[in-house]
Amino acid sequence: MSSTIPDIVISRLPIYLRALDRLAQEGHEVTSSHELGKRLGISSAQIRKALSHFGGFGKQGTGYKIEYLKAQLQQVLHVDREWEVALVGAGDLGSAVARYRGFVERGFHITHVFDSAPDKINKQVGAFTIRPITEMARTINKHGIKLAMIAVPAENAQAVADLLIEAGVRAILNYAPINLNVPENVHVQYIDPVIHLQRMTYYLA
Amino acid sequence: MSSTIPDIVISRLPIYLRALDRLAQEGHEVTSSHELGKRLGISSAQIRKALSHFGGFGKQGTGYKIEYLKAQLQQVLHVDREWEVALVGAGDLGSAVARYRGFVERGFHITHVFDSAPDKINKQVGAFTIRPITEMARTINKHGIKLAMIAVPAENAQAVADLLIEAGVRAILNYAPINLNVPENVHVQYIDPVIHLQRMTYYLA
Repeated sequence: MSSTIPDIVISRLPIYLRALDRLAQEGHEVTSSHELGKRLGISSAQIRKALSHFGGFGKQGTGYKIEYLKAQLQQVLHVDREWEVALVGAGDLGSAVARYRGFVERGFHITHVFDSAPDKINKQVGAFTIRPITEMARTINKHGIKLAMIAVPAENAQAVADLLIEAGVRAILNYAPINLNVPENVHVQYIDPVIHLQRMTYYLA
Repeated sequence: MSSTIPDIVISRLPIYLRALDRLAQEGHEVTSSHELGKRLGISSAQIRKALSHFGGFGKQGTGYKIEYLKAQLQQVLHVDREWEVALVGAGDLGSAVARYRGFVERGFHITHVFDSAPDKINKQVGAFTIRPITEMARTINKHGIKLAMIAVPAENAQAVADLLIEAGVRAILNYAPINLNVPENVHVQYIDPVIHLQRMTYYLA
């Protein structure tokens, strides 16, 4: 199934899932492509089309059962399980990432934090003990960790990414403001808030 | 000019600008669409095509002068000036945002921080004094602030957005994990790292 679903559809599913979580928290049990579309500012047709790739999630006129649709989307996205995540970089940005509670609430457990600065090693950041980056490859390999977040300075990010990938990481969330070059079987996503601000100032006179 | 440039091209310009910043920091003075493409993992043709929308940035065979191209892109994106930004929410996430140095380094000055919790008012977060949300509309209006960042709990984000827009804000960077409904003349971008992780776990077995 996975090979036939366009990337653009996959990229939207987490947004639908987040909206469904919200509806469930508000006490709703059933929703419709119309209601979801209204919440997300997109057409109901787009939602029906996206969900049609997975088949059988809802019937015309009766709406979607929220818990069922949530479970289906979680399964498709492989977030019906817990994920271990390694975090590299425990400076200001990395520390904020380590302390952000939104990850664990949605199934992503930071289990290891690494840094290269000698004065940071064995210090605590949130619930974690910072470990030296020299241990990183061995630890990631041993625990079979596939997901990592990079929060090191831009000039070190590519070298860290290379080490992570060699150790077995297959998906990287990069907070460093630099593009990473990775092999085709490795996925990278970026968090750089300034990029988003600059996309908007274009439209401001 | 602005009305004829596709959104997708605009969305890429900040990424090109970031790569040019990096090249300049590394001491380069000239680059090529080939070199830029290699750094960004895209084709040189895509870069040439995007830049052709603005005309005259480079000549075939001679490459681009980095400082000149940077200045042109900054002008197009309206980041050849400093921007004042209001931040709403001074909890864990908002505090991390307030302390993040990457904004000011790239021309975005957080000038006001608001929160609704009585115990936070007049406390410091980074360099800022937290002010009550009841002052928000007046302050934003008085200073003509057009950009804001929302870092409040999801259930409050829409109400905060409505207040910001009424006060004159035209672009919102939303850290709350919820979709915002805004008028057509208001721009919203989202920062939700979990969404990015979920986009990648789909591809992990």
